[in-house]
Amino acid sequence: MKTVLVYLPLEPRHREKLEAAGAGCRFLYTLPGEDVDALLPQAEIIIGNVPPAKLNKAEKLELMQLNSSGAAEYAAPGVLRPGVRLVNATGAYGRSVAEHALAATLMLQKNLHLYRDSQRQARWTDFGKVGSIAGSVVAVVGLGDIGLRYARMAKALGAYTIGLKRRAGERPEGVDELRRTDELMEVLTRADVVASFLPGTKDTEHLYTLEHFKAMKDSAIFLNCGRGNAVDGQVLYEALSKGLIAAASVDVTDPEPLPESSPLWGLDNLLLTPHVSGGYHLYETFETIIDIASKNLAAYLSGGELVNIVDFATGYRK
Amino acid sequence: MKTVLVYLPLEPRHREKLEAAGAGCRFLYTLPGEDVDALLPQAEIIIGNVPPAKLNKAEKLELMQLNSSGAAEYAAPGVLRPGVRLVNATGAYGRSVAEHALAATLMLQKNLHLYRDSQRQARWTDFGKVGSIAGSVVAVVGLGDIGLRYARMAKALGAYTIGLKRRAGERPEGVDELRRTDELMEVLTRADVVASFLPGTKDTEHLYTLEHFKAMKDSAIFLNCGRGNAVDGQVLYEALSKGLIAAASVDVTDPEPLPESSPLWGLDNLLLTPHVSGGYHLYETFETIIDIASKNLAAYLSGGELVNIVDFATGYRK
Repeated sequence: MKTVLVYLPLEPRHREKLEAAGAGCRFLYTLPGEDVDALLPQAEIIIGNVPPAKLNKAEKLELMQLNSSGAAEYAAPGVLRPGVRLVNATGAYGRSVAEHALAATLMLQKNLHLYRDSQRQARWTDFGKVGSIAGSVVAVVGLGDIGLRYARMAKALGAYTIGLKRRAGERPEGVDELRRTDELMEVLTRADVVASFLPGTKDTEHLYTLEHFKAMKDSAIFLNCGRGNAVDGQVLYEALSKGLIAAASVDVTDPEPLPESSPLWGLDNLLLTPHVSGGYHLYETFETIIDIASKNLAAYLSGGELVNIVDFATGYRK
Repeated sequence: MKTVLVYLPLEPRHREKLEAAGAGCRFLYTLPGEDVDALLPQAEIIIGNVPPAKLNKAEKLELMQLNSSGAAEYAAPGVLRPGVRLVNATGAYGRSVAEHALAATLMLQKNLHLYRDSQRQARWTDFGKVGSIAGSVVAVVGLGDIGLRYARMAKALGAYTIGLKRRAGERPEGVDELRRTDELMEVLTRADVVASFLPGTKDTEHLYTLEHFKAMKDSAIFLNCGRGNAVDGQVLYEALSKGLIAAASVDVTDPEPLPESSPLWGLDNLLLTPHVSGGYHLYETFETIIDIASKNLAAYLSGGELVNIVDFATGYRK
C-alpha cells in the first residue's frame, strides 16, 4: 500500500478521480502553503509542487508529479534522491498561456493598450496605422506545448511562423519554418513578432541581450510568457524606451512581483501582466493537471508507462 | 471621353492604376474635405465619398464608386438621380475590422483591459479566472465580409460560431450555425461572445435594447464594430454598470466623437476605441479600395459587369 501525498486545492470530483486511479493507496491531502513537514516522510508518491527545499524530508519518495510545466528546480542536483521518477504537467497550461500571448499580440498590433490609456482620460484620439497578424512573420522561441499552440493559432490567422527549438527535428504542423535556437539572432532580423516561451533553466537566463533587441525590426513586437529571467529588466527597459522595438508584453518579470519602483510599469509601449497567463486562470487547466496525475498514478502502480517524464540532465520533459 | 472625379488621397501608384483602368478618360483629382463644388457638374464618374448633400450638383453623374462599405446615406431617396449606378468598397475593410474585433474579444476574455489599468498604477494584482475563445459560442450579427472574416478567425481558434443574417441561405464556410436576424433573441441566450457588425441603416437603429442585454449571459462579451446607432449609449451604460453582461468593446458610438461628458468613458468593463477598426489604419485597406475602383471603372467603360453594386432599396450591397 503506497502513501500518496496530494499538495493541491482539490474539489470532491478531483479526489474521486485520483482515488479511483490509485485504488488501494492511502491518500494524505494538504494545501499549498500549509506545513507538510510531518507528512513528507510517509509519502511514496507526491502530487503537487511541494517546495524543493523540503523534499530531502521525503525519504521514501519514489514518484514526484509536479503540477507545473517548469521542472528545473526539481531536476537540480540534490533535490530528489537518485531513482525518484519526476513527471510534470506539460500540456495543462498550453491553451491558457498561448491564448493569453495571442491576445497580447493582437492588442499591441492594434494599439489597444494605447486606446485603453486614452479612454481612461476620456480622449477620442486616433493612434494611426496598425499591424496585422495576417502576413506577419512570427518567431516562436521555445516550441513546447505552449509555443506550438501559439504558433498554430498565429498561423490559422494568416501568419508565417518560424519555430525555434534547441535541436532541429521534424517540422511540426503549424510551423512554416523550423530553426535551432542558436540561429536566433538571424531569425530576429526577419520577425514582426517574437514570442518567447522558454522555461527557466540556466541556459535561458538573460538570453535576450541588448544586441538581440538591436537586431529586431524597430516595428517588432516582443512577448515573454516563459520565465522572467530570460530578459534582464534593464535591457527590456532600454529596448522599449529607446524604440529599438515597437512594443512588448511580458507576463513574467525578474523578480516577481515586480517592485513598485521598477521603471517598467510606466512604459506606454509595454503591456505588463502579473504572471497570470497560466496558473489556474483557465478552468480546464486544473482539470488537465488532475487528468495527467491520475494517469501517471495508475500507470506507476501497475508498472505502466508514465507520461511527461522529466530529464534530469536538462530539466525539460524528455 | 468621360470625366472622372477622384476624391481620395492618392499616391502616384494609385493614380497610375486608375488611369490605366480608365484609359482615355479625363481625371480630376481633389482631396476629401476640399471644395468640390466647381468640379461636380463635370463629373460623369465619381470615385470617393463626396458628401451626399453636394451630389445634386453632379448633374452628369452616371457612376458613383464609394470608398466605404456603408452606403445608406447615398442610397437614400433624392441623393442620386435615378439611373446613377452606386457601388461600394465592400471587401476593403474586412481584415482590418475583423482583426480589431478579434483583438478586442481576446483582450476582454483575458482581462487585459483591467491589467492595463492596474499596470498604470504599478499594481501587481491578479484578476482571477479568464475566458477562452476555444469552446466559446460566438454569435456574429451581420454576416457581410467583415462578420464572415471574424467568424472564420474565431472558428479557427476553436469557437463555435453562429452567424446571423437577414435572410437565411446557404451556410457559409466558417459558420457552424446560420440563423436569421429575427432569431437574435434566442441566440443571445446561448452566446459567450456577441459580435455585431451591422451597417447603419434605419432597420438597425437602436436594435439592441435593454431586453437584449438581459437575455445575454451575465458572463457574455458584447462587441460593436458596425455603426454606433445600433446601441443607445444609455442602454449600453446600464447593461455594463449593472453587470447584465461581463464586458463590452465598442469602436463606434452615437454621436461620434463621444462627448467627454459621456459616462461610458469611465466604465472599467468597457473598452472604447474611437472608430479606428477600419478607416485606412491597415495598409492593405486603401490598396483594396483602389483595386475595386479600378475594376469598376474599367468594367463601366467597357460595358462589363460592376462589382459591389448597392441596392437602393436596402442600402446594402446586392
